[in-house]
Amino acid sequence: MFWNEEIETMPRQDLEELQLKKLQSTVKRAFEKIPYYNKRYSEAEVYPEDIETLKDIEKLPFITKDDLRESYPFGLFAVDIKEIKELHSSSGTTGKPVVSGYTEKDLDTWAETIARGLTMMGIGEDDILQNTHGYGMFTGGFGVHYGSHKVGAAIIPISTGQTRRQIEIMKDFGATGLIFTPSYGIHLAEVALEDGIDPKELGIKAIGFGAEGWTEEIRQRVEELFGTKAYNIYGLTELMGPGVGIECEAQKGLHIAEDIYYPEIIDPNTQQVLGENTPGELVLTNLEREGMPVIRFRTKDLTKITYEKCECGRTHARMSRITGRSDDMIKVKGVAIFPSQIEKALLKVGDAEPHYMIIVTRPGTLDEIEVKVEVSQDIFFDGVKEMMAVQNKIGKSIENETGIRVKVTLVEPKTLPRFEGKAKRVIDERNLH
Amino acid sequence: MFWNEEIETMPRQDLEELQLKKLQSTVKRAFEKIPYYNKRYSEAEVYPEDIETLKDIEKLPFITKDDLRESYPFGLFAVDIKEIKELHSSSGTTGKPVVSGYTEKDLDTWAETIARGLTMMGIGEDDILQNTHGYGMFTGGFGVHYGSHKVGAAIIPISTGQTRRQIEIMKDFGATGLIFTPSYGIHLAEVALEDGIDPKELGIKAIGFGAEGWTEEIRQRVEELFGTKAYNIYGLTELMGPGVGIECEAQKGLHIAEDIYYPEIIDPNTQQVLGENTPGELVLTNLEREGMPVIRFRTKDLTKITYEKCECGRTHARMSRITGRSDDMIKVKGVAIFPSQIEKALLKVGDAEPHYMIIVTRPGTLDEIEVKVEVSQDIFFDGVKEMMAVQNKIGKSIENETGIRVKVTLVEPKTLPRFEGKAKRVIDERNLH
Repeated sequence: MFWNEEIETMPRQDLEELQLKKLQSTVKRAFEKIPYYNKRYSEAEVYPEDIETLKDIEKLPFITKDDLRESYPFGLFAVDIKEIKELHSSSGTTGKPVVSGYTEKDLDTWAETIARGLTMMGIGEDDILQNTHGYGMFTGGFGVHYGSHKVGAAIIPISTGQTRRQIEIMKDFGATGLIFTPSYGIHLAEVALEDGIDPKELGIKAIGFGAEGWTEEIRQRVEELFGTKAYNIYGLTELMGPGVGIECEAQKGLHIAEDIYYPEIIDPNTQQVLGENTPGELVLTNLEREGMPVIRFRTKDLTKITYEKCECGRTHARMSRITGRSDDMIKVKGVAIFPSQIEKALLKVGDAEPHYMIIVTRPGTLDEIEVKVEVSQDIFFDGVKEMMAVQNKIGKSIENETGIRVKVTLVEPKTLPRFEGKAKRVIDERNLH
Repeated sequence: MFWNEEIETMPRQDLEELQLKKLQSTVKRAFEKIPYYNKRYSEAEVYPEDIETLKDIEKLPFITKDDLRESYPFGLFAVDIKEIKELHSSSGTTGKPVVSGYTEKDLDTWAETIARGLTMMGIGEDDILQNTHGYGMFTGGFGVHYGSHKVGAAIIPISTGQTRRQIEIMKDFGATGLIFTPSYGIHLAEVALEDGIDPKELGIKAIGFGAEGWTEEIRQRVEELFGTKAYNIYGLTELMGPGVGIECEAQKGLHIAEDIYYPEIIDPNTQQVLGENTPGELVLTNLEREGMPVIRFRTKDLTKITYEKCECGRTHARMSRITGRSDDMIKVKGVAIFPSQIEKALLKVGDAEPHYMIIVTRPGTLDEIEVKVEVSQDIFFDGVKEMMAVQNKIGKSIENETGIRVKVTLVEPKTLPRFEGKAKRVIDERNLH
């Protein structure tokens, strides 16, 4: 099932011709309408007419979150505010937030990307889609909302929180699709089970995952709990919102809507563009955005891309799920480690619940990592000897995965925080000393 | 300025013909498609063909919130769930919530009512509208959102809370329109003033008020604080959401979108339909709703209606602002009193801030009302004698307004709760004893 078969299965050569045309007109508009690009490109002595092939995009300087912040609020808009119909922004916990502006056409383009993804998940006009993503300045809720309207599903815009009410509505309204962050999804399932409701019995056909990092093991856990497939949805406010990449039924990578976003993978240190199947930092370019075209945005998200045709028939490139961030990796004793590695190690052990916190401290001159892990009720009551064994197993598994030794602390079930939005699993206390 | 001049200024005779046609087809569809209506109307021996004039609506039984609850979740839908594109519900603090379902056309009709209102307020495609109403199952946020899209303003869907961020965004994005509940608006202004920002300097052109009761004095206060006009927006989830009635620039009542909602005023005790300009309970009928037509819904909101042509040129009936609810009035010593009366009395005195709580207790066999009121800093430091004088003044003013004596307690500024949603000013402790 395709939402837009012609585009989604377009032969790559045609697709690349389409991308080139869109890239050329995007660069031209940006250069002519947005002083920021005009200045940056003039300084780099690169001009719209220099974009003769897709490869020529590499001549253009990157844009970063800091550039977006400096353009706050509307410095990157290519149109008059009169043409802007909606404004979003990132949370802006440090410094000014990043603003994202949408024309009427942009809102439709955004909905198009999600509509393709919902169709991949098998969600259409017969379905009832419960959207637990937050609405507001955050783009997670609205992206799904507009996409749901486009495919004609009935959206339940319930937003995050009120978990028991969520479960009641899911059951009473007969939701067939769910959208949540993996950590909130597990929380939902746990609360349902506590109340004697088996999430598998709810008749959920498909789950859309988004807005935070996760591992295959977490996906398996969610799929087991709800008895259905969970699909990855990727996106970011700077580029438009969720919908940049979404998994098809093959679950072998996220199809990037390549007629709408142009992806590159770079080495975060050398900034060189890397080839297919080589892990690096994702760089994205809006190919189809009127309000605020963002060109070569360094996402800081680490992934890799394949251009091989997918078994689903789609020709659009696939990115792997995000394995970490080039800026939130924890560097300890010279080794770069990512929360996702810890998570993977934990889940391999099996006795641990996928609830954990990573605490980084520097008691003297050396960094130390403590990983607090919830263990199942059984283990916790098995006695000290058994707990020590589990602790050792987890420690070894983490050492295997990351190459470093960490302190493992087992805690009682349900004592670590549950996250209703993006999970914040790393507490870095090194700056506090 | 009109959004839909032909409809909004339609001669009353034409309007009533249009209403009759729509009423007839609504009743027919409800009777044919919805077992609830079929049963109720059959029991009352009233049939679609009995609706020959608008007046004939009085033959139809009322529908109440309890009926809606009993039809939970989709018992009142006239279409297949496949046709439903969005679901909302009331908060459901007592019993099952009330569900509201929308087809694609219904969402457009809803947007149309708000678009008319935003145009009355002078908000159009040049404007930036900051919407502090909550999104989610609550209809406040989405109604305004869809209306804003329709008139082409740039919506900031910031939702409630994070007050300092609200103010920063208001200033930085250059919001020209604001949507808030009166109590949250006053809170916003207070926080801005604390931070040395004069809300009058923010360049706000118009304010839309909704989702809770208020008085003319509260409106004046908000208009003074923001240096602009504040317009009343009325609606309820059961009927669709906000947009049933909205004030025009004359601010002499809320124009009911009469081609979309048919209003009646009844005596809440005898249930008789009352004439023009006579206060009573508002009863509303959806004239233009596919998904879930609600016919003769008892809103419990108290108001009155005039059919006199407005100075703005609109012919649609005007309702007065809601003065109370037929079910949340406090009955004390046999006298029915409403929070709005207390509020009015307080604001007449002048020394009191519009922050108050009403506590109803029954220490022995008789009810007692205590009104806690914040007074300004000055009064509070003037000494006991001065405070006693203010207390007496407030007590007399309340007695004038309601006819009963209450206990008045003055409290320090900013000690009573601020409400970010609907203000809850009455604490009725009589059931606890």
